[in-house]
Amino acid sequence: MKVAASLVLAAAAVVMATPASAQFAKPEDAIKYRQSVMFVMSQHFGRIGAMATDKAPYDAKAAVENAEIVAMMARLPWAGFVPGTDKIGNTRAKPEIWTEQVKFREHNEKLVGETQKLLAAAKTNNLDNLKAAFKPTAAACKSCHDDFRNK
Amino acid sequence: MKVAASLVLAAAAVVMATPASAQFAKPEDAIKYRQSVMFVMSQHFGRIGAMATDKAPYDAKAAVENAEIVAMMARLPWAGFVPGTDKIGNTRAKPEIWTEQVKFREHNEKLVGETQKLLAAAKTNNLDNLKAAFKPTAAACKSCHDDFRNK
Repeated sequence: MKVAASLVLAAAAVVMATPASAQFAKPEDAIKYRQSVMFVMSQHFGRIGAMATDKAPYDAKAAVENAEIVAMMARLPWAGFVPGTDKIGNTRAKPEIWTEQVKFREHNEKLVGETQKLLAAAKTNNLDNLKAAFKPTAAACKSCHDDFRNK
Repeated sequence: MKVAASLVLAAAAVVMATPASAQFAKPEDAIKYRQSVMFVMSQHFGRIGAMATDKAPYDAKAAVENAEIVAMMARLPWAGFVPGTDKIGNTRAKPEIWTEQVKFREHNEKLVGETQKLLAAAKTNNLDNLKAAFKPTAAACKSCHDDFRNK
C-alpha cells in the first residue's frame, strides 16, 4: 500500500507539473494532440484488455511493453486541454473540464496512478495481477469519460 | 562510440521485434495510429528543436521530458504501416514503404537510434550536446519523409 500510495503521489506531481498552458502553435493542435494521445493509449490499452479478459493469449512481454506505453501516454493529454478548446474544432470535451478543474485533475491523477500500478502489475509477469490492475484502470478511463466527454 | 553503437543495435532490435502485422481492428486504425504517433512525436520534438535553435530558452528538465517522449514514440509508428494502407484513407504514405522494406526499416532504425542519442544528450543537461544531437535526429525525420512520404 505504501508503494501504491507513493506511486499515486508521484503521478499527481507529474500531472501538476504539466502546465495546461499554450505549448501549442494553435488551439487546433492542442485538440489534435490530446486526441492523438488518447487514440494511441487506447490501442495499447486495448491489447492489455484483450489479455486481461481472456480474448487474446497472455504474452507477458507484450503486456509490459504495452503497459509502458500506456503509463507514459497517460501523463500527456492533460496539457492539450487548453482553455477554450471545447468551443472549436471537432471535440467531445465538455465545458465542465474547465469549470470543474479540481475534479478533472483528480480524474487525471487517478488515471496516471492506475496506469503506473498497471505497469507494475504487468512487470510481475502474472496474468492474475494484470487482470486485477486492468479493471481499476479501465474504470478510471470510464469515469472521466462519463463526466467530461460528450457522447 | 561503443555506447552509441550498442544503442543503435538495441534500437534495431526494438524495431525488428515490432511486427507490422494486423494489431489493429481495421486498416483505418493503423493509419490513424501511425499519424497520431507522428503528431505527438512532432509536438515534443518541436519543443526540443525550439531550444536547440535558440528560439526558446533552454530548460534542461523539459528537454529530458520531451526527449523521453520522443524516444518512446519513435519506436511505435512502424507497426502502423500495415501492407495496403497506402491505398485507403487519408495518407501520404508512398507505396515504396512496402516495395523497399529493407531501406524503410533502415530509416526506422536510424530514427530510433538518433532519438535514443538525443535522450542521452538531453540527460547531460548541456545545451551544446542537445544541439549536436538535434541535427542528426531532424535529418533522420527528413530523409525518411523525403523518400517515403508524398508531399
